Amino acid sequence: MKIKFKPIGIIYSPYKKLKDIPCQSYKSREIGKIKIFKKYEKGLKDIEGFSHLWILYYFHKAGKFKSLVKPFLDEKLYGLFATRYFNRPNPIGISLVKLLERKRNVLEIEGIDVLDKTPLLDIKPYVPKFDQRKRVKIGWLREKIT
Amino acid sequence: MKIKFKPIGIIYSPYKKLKDIPCQSYKSREIGKIKIFKKYEKGLKDIEGFSHLWILYYFHKAGKFKSLVKPFLDEKLYGLFATRYFNRPNPIGISLVKLLERKRNVLEIEGIDVLDKTPLLDIKPYVPKFDQRKRVKIGWLREKIT
Repeated sequence: MKIKFKPIGIIYSPYKKLKDIPCQSYKSREIGKIKIFKKYEKGLKDIEGFSHLWILYYFHKAGKFKSLVKPFLDEKLYGLFATRYFNRPNPIGISLVKLLERKRNVLEIEGIDVLDKTPLLDIKPYVPKFDQRKRVKIGWLREKIT
Repeated sequence: MKIKFKPIGIIYSPYKKLKDIPCQSYKSREIGKIKIFKKYEKGLKDIEGFSHLWILYYFHKAGKFKSLVKPFLDEKLYGLFATRYFNRPNPIGISLVKLLERKRNVLEIEGIDVLDKTPLLDIKPYVPKFDQRKRVKIGWLREKIT
């Protein structure tokens, strides 16, 4: 089975190179913009009611995946699916961002952690009931995240 | 730009038909299985340390998207990107599931809300620091979610 996707917009960010992206990117307060292509603008109706959005995007600079990787936060090798590393069999990234403003087909967002001009694949509303759990174990990341 | 993805495994669920999936699927306690194709098994190393996982998958039964949709929880029309509806320009779904057990290339998971035999695209560890926010507004869903 081959699955074909296409960008629905472009994410603009202050990070021009991979090395500019901070290791602990969840701390990012950087502002970015998402331009949705005009044909999808109508689908943004009602989005202003949500304070936070999931953005799904294509890691367009990703290389070939390896099963074991050395992620940002450690020197050891970990199984790829136990990391958020970008070289993946299907290089799809997800980030949770804060919606600051919408002007027609442009969303201004806070907390961006992707490369400039990253192709956008999808936007979904962030809903705590769907997306939050209690009593979570985070494996090898436990002592890495401050 | 054309983006090509391929399944990395298959999700097995008790839901054989779209109409079997409960409206408020975040309440699901159903058990399912994910079989990762053998070539990706090594990438599952260290995953047992995580209690919860994101699964990204292909809505393989999705139809053509419309900009305005009537989602499960309401009778009104909303902008597609303000919903989690499955007919999307790029029909990628995300679900947060609980990892019960791993046996080689098979993961037993709880809280499944996808169709049986859904093609799996990616697995990422769930990390509250990355994936949780406080003071969240959820727009039209505010009075729909109990």
